[in-house]
Amino acid sequence: MTPSAATPAYRRLSVEERRSQLLEAALSLFAHRVPEDVSLDDVAEAAGVSRPLVYRYFPGGKQQLYEAALRSAAEELEHCFDEPREGPLVPRLSRALDRYLAFVDQHDAGFSALLQGGSVVETSRTTAIVDGVRRAAARHILSHLGVADPGPRLRMTVRMWITAVEAASLIWLDEDKQPPSDELRDWLVDQFVAVLSVTARRDPQTAALVDALAADD
Amino acid sequence: MTPSAATPAYRRLSVEERRSQLLEAALSLFAHRVPEDVSLDDVAEAAGVSRPLVYRYFPGGKQQLYEAALRSAAEELEHCFDEPREGPLVPRLSRALDRYLAFVDQHDAGFSALLQGGSVVETSRTTAIVDGVRRAAARHILSHLGVADPGPRLRMTVRMWITAVEAASLIWLDEDKQPPSDELRDWLVDQFVAVLSVTARRDPQTAALVDALAADD
Repeated sequence: MTPSAATPAYRRLSVEERRSQLLEAALSLFAHRVPEDVSLDDVAEAAGVSRPLVYRYFPGGKQQLYEAALRSAAEELEHCFDEPREGPLVPRLSRALDRYLAFVDQHDAGFSALLQGGSVVETSRTTAIVDGVRRAAARHILSHLGVADPGPRLRMTVRMWITAVEAASLIWLDEDKQPPSDELRDWLVDQFVAVLSVTARRDPQTAALVDALAADD
Repeated sequence: MTPSAATPAYRRLSVEERRSQLLEAALSLFAHRVPEDVSLDDVAEAAGVSRPLVYRYFPGGKQQLYEAALRSAAEELEHCFDEPREGPLVPRLSRALDRYLAFVDQHDAGFSALLQGGSVVETSRTTAIVDGVRRAAARHILSHLGVADPGPRLRMTVRMWITAVEAASLIWLDEDKQPPSDELRDWLVDQFVAVLSVTARRDPQTAALVDALAADD
């Protein structure tokens, strides 16, 4: 017996569709309130279903729902980094950042709560999901840079910049999304080029990369 | 009846001394193992006292001890930023970073566990302590920069760099403390100057600051 068969009063959805619908409702709630302030009742109401239905899909309760919503947000976030390996590098990075900032804009409070930590729904599993996104971002950037075997200095530079971008996103949400996202994007891209140039002074691999970037333009 | 009077077998210490001794023992354990793997028995053994004595000082158990140890580490960390307001700015920043990196080197596993989050002993209180250190670092830097009323772009630049430094410390611990700390320090200082210069292109306040820094040398 599938959950949707058990609830004939609702529009018939496949198990997968229903699950997606609940996750979507949860994500939109987590976007505007910290996880602590979202109850399963709220999720049921937002999705237009009964509380028992939510529990049937997420028997682990709010923690399970939160982790599933987080996983689905993480996948969405990783898609931001999908960018064809064509054309000059800097505009590619700008486009990926545009999508990333749109995601931050959309997910707002949930994004902050998640990255600021100390949330009651934070566990080693949620931390691992977030770390997975960070690692995916680093992989994408290094692959766009066309470096097959990045050395420690280049990897560290990329990871530091990703962290700085995260910090910028949180501050940006805190400061009522100022400066405008296209200005923030250009600023972050310029910072990336600047820190790469600093690393280039002490790392031949990064120096070659910076030369290639300059020739790119 | 003071705790030390109740335990005549131990060396007589004042309440404050005993507390410090226990915190020191706890910190040295947290430095080499993740908090999850440190028990109150371990702390008692390391301090050469009985388990009940540890509980007498920290009736809240490990969580309370951890928070107290964290607070004491946070104070120590904030002292790293104490730097006389004399001489050129870049060497001041270098000296503060030297002390910071020595702290990271010393506190090792505990430092990582704390900043990486998702720890079972992490709470909104521990997060607040860590955030307090970040804010103190930003205040110190802005005060050294001699900016009385920093605008949003300058503040954001400083906070992003502080986050990048944190990320660098964690990666550095992960990578067996490579590159050597003096090299890492110079690299971080150069990055700070580079990101300030990027911000200077879009912010007159930061531009004036970068000019002053250049005249400083």
